[in-house]
Amino acid sequence: MNVLIMGGDGFIGSHVVDKIIELGHRVTVFDRFSNRATKHLEHQRGNLSFLSGEFANRDILKRALENQEVVYHFICMTDPASSWNDPFIEIEQNLRDSIHFFELASESGVRKIVFPSSGGTIYGPQYGRITEDILPKPFSPYGITKLATEHFLNYFKERVNMASDIYRIGNAYGPRQPLNNPQGVIGTWMKHILEGSEVQVFGDRQTLRDYVYVEDIAFLMTHSLSNFDSSRTYNLGTGIGVSILDLLEVFIDTIDHPFPYQIHPRRSFDNTSVILDRNPLVLCAQVVVLDCA
Amino acid sequence: MNVLIMGGDGFIGSHVVDKIIELGHRVTVFDRFSNRATKHLEHQRGNLSFLSGEFANRDILKRALENQEVVYHFICMTDPASSWNDPFIEIEQNLRDSIHFFELASESGVRKIVFPSSGGTIYGPQYGRITEDILPKPFSPYGITKLATEHFLNYFKERVNMASDIYRIGNAYGPRQPLNNPQGVIGTWMKHILEGSEVQVFGDRQTLRDYVYVEDIAFLMTHSLSNFDSSRTYNLGTGIGVSILDLLEVFIDTIDHPFPYQIHPRRSFDNTSVILDRNPLVLCAQVVVLDCA
Repeated sequence: MNVLIMGGDGFIGSHVVDKIIELGHRVTVFDRFSNRATKHLEHQRGNLSFLSGEFANRDILKRALENQEVVYHFICMTDPASSWNDPFIEIEQNLRDSIHFFELASESGVRKIVFPSSGGTIYGPQYGRITEDILPKPFSPYGITKLATEHFLNYFKERVNMASDIYRIGNAYGPRQPLNNPQGVIGTWMKHILEGSEVQVFGDRQTLRDYVYVEDIAFLMTHSLSNFDSSRTYNLGTGIGVSILDLLEVFIDTIDHPFPYQIHPRRSFDNTSVILDRNPLVLCAQVVVLDCA
Repeated sequence: MNVLIMGGDGFIGSHVVDKIIELGHRVTVFDRFSNRATKHLEHQRGNLSFLSGEFANRDILKRALENQEVVYHFICMTDPASSWNDPFIEIEQNLRDSIHFFELASESGVRKIVFPSSGGTIYGPQYGRITEDILPKPFSPYGITKLATEHFLNYFKERVNMASDIYRIGNAYGPRQPLNNPQGVIGTWMKHILEGSEVQVFGDRQTLRDYVYVEDIAFLMTHSLSNFDSSRTYNLGTGIGVSILDLLEVFIDTIDHPFPYQIHPRRSFDNTSVILDRNPLVLCAQVVVLDCA
């Protein structure tokens, strides 16, 4: 099968590339490759096609989409914190440009889009375990436009019969975790520890998150390749909530030397609790952070 | 209280203007007034301030927002049918420009936004009666961006404490129903009958809609003026589903002379059934179409 992975040189995307190559598919990765170097895919040179370009450039997108059957769309220009005070970057660079891309994909005959959505920001304030059929209450621009993008995928299914699988992912962690421009608490803390600066902890024992190992995410997302015409929405988490202070203890226990940290109240754009549930796929996932704890 | 009504010279907006003036508030209406003439508000000259401008013009918006406490936002550049093949007009002219407007409103110290949302297109395919807490499944660009706009109002509440009431309105009908650029089946049919052309009926006995009299909508939407700091989402319907063929019979019985019509299957961008429920406010509404039937 011909599979295009947009943003495939990133954190989660590159693990998905590894898994899909392992399955024997023909993979093309579209990303910003500066000076022809990859960030995470040097070990795969020869096993796939690389295409370098900007997501806003329609001509390159059209080339990337030629003869593709399934497209994974990992390109995302923002993160929840940066878009809190600038909703327009979400609307213009994520939502609008993604819809343009889906439009081109449908014109190219793509049969399925796989979209990594956000298990954290889409649901908003909820109590207890969150299932896929709960009423989402997003209140950050990041979560609002992720949910709108999901709905636009429904639109393309209705209008042109292009299928789509949506994975609402918990807090990803693992190898290749980005430290520059980090998204998520684990990358941010690691960056501060490596730089020797103070780790800022926002929240308390009630600030629960669902941490998922990135290789499990990648494995579970290959599921879409064997269910070609279906369109489904999956929570991709472990069903286990780990508090931000428990996570801090894992860091303290795991890292060889002590590091400075400071604990603050929860920030307004963070949810209190995110525990994703009711995804039968998730039985396969290994919860490595919890094994350490 | 100072109340700004954006798009207040339109169908529903102008009825809201009438009701709010009746309650003794100071009303400013912002709309496109060509040649200083209003479409529906000549009888109110002297009772309110008029401001003519384009929704994309930020300077005029800022002037309109000065000293306003509550803002009704009736401006909408599209309708479900026209945006079916052009999702970008929704994203750029409705969603983005509305968020720009809410940003300006919050900077001007507006305390509450009242937003007319869509009871029809937000919910998507559902069975039976629809309550406000059901999972929305929008699949038309119109419904998707209406729902995203609702979510962005939650964002402004969280970020800057600007309150908002959302009214998800059924199929409005009544005096001042637009016949040029009509939205909704009643206006469209009336236009065809007046022009002597054939009425096109899309659907069957299962194509149910919740028709609400426009003066009831206007009366119910004034509710937001007495609940100043709350933020709520209301279905605004009757709880009664009328099939498209029953509506056709009402037309045939009510209109003095026969008119030609043709019955077609439901269109892909139309929902099968929309019956709004669980709004205690709605007990006040008179269901005039049903009285005629």
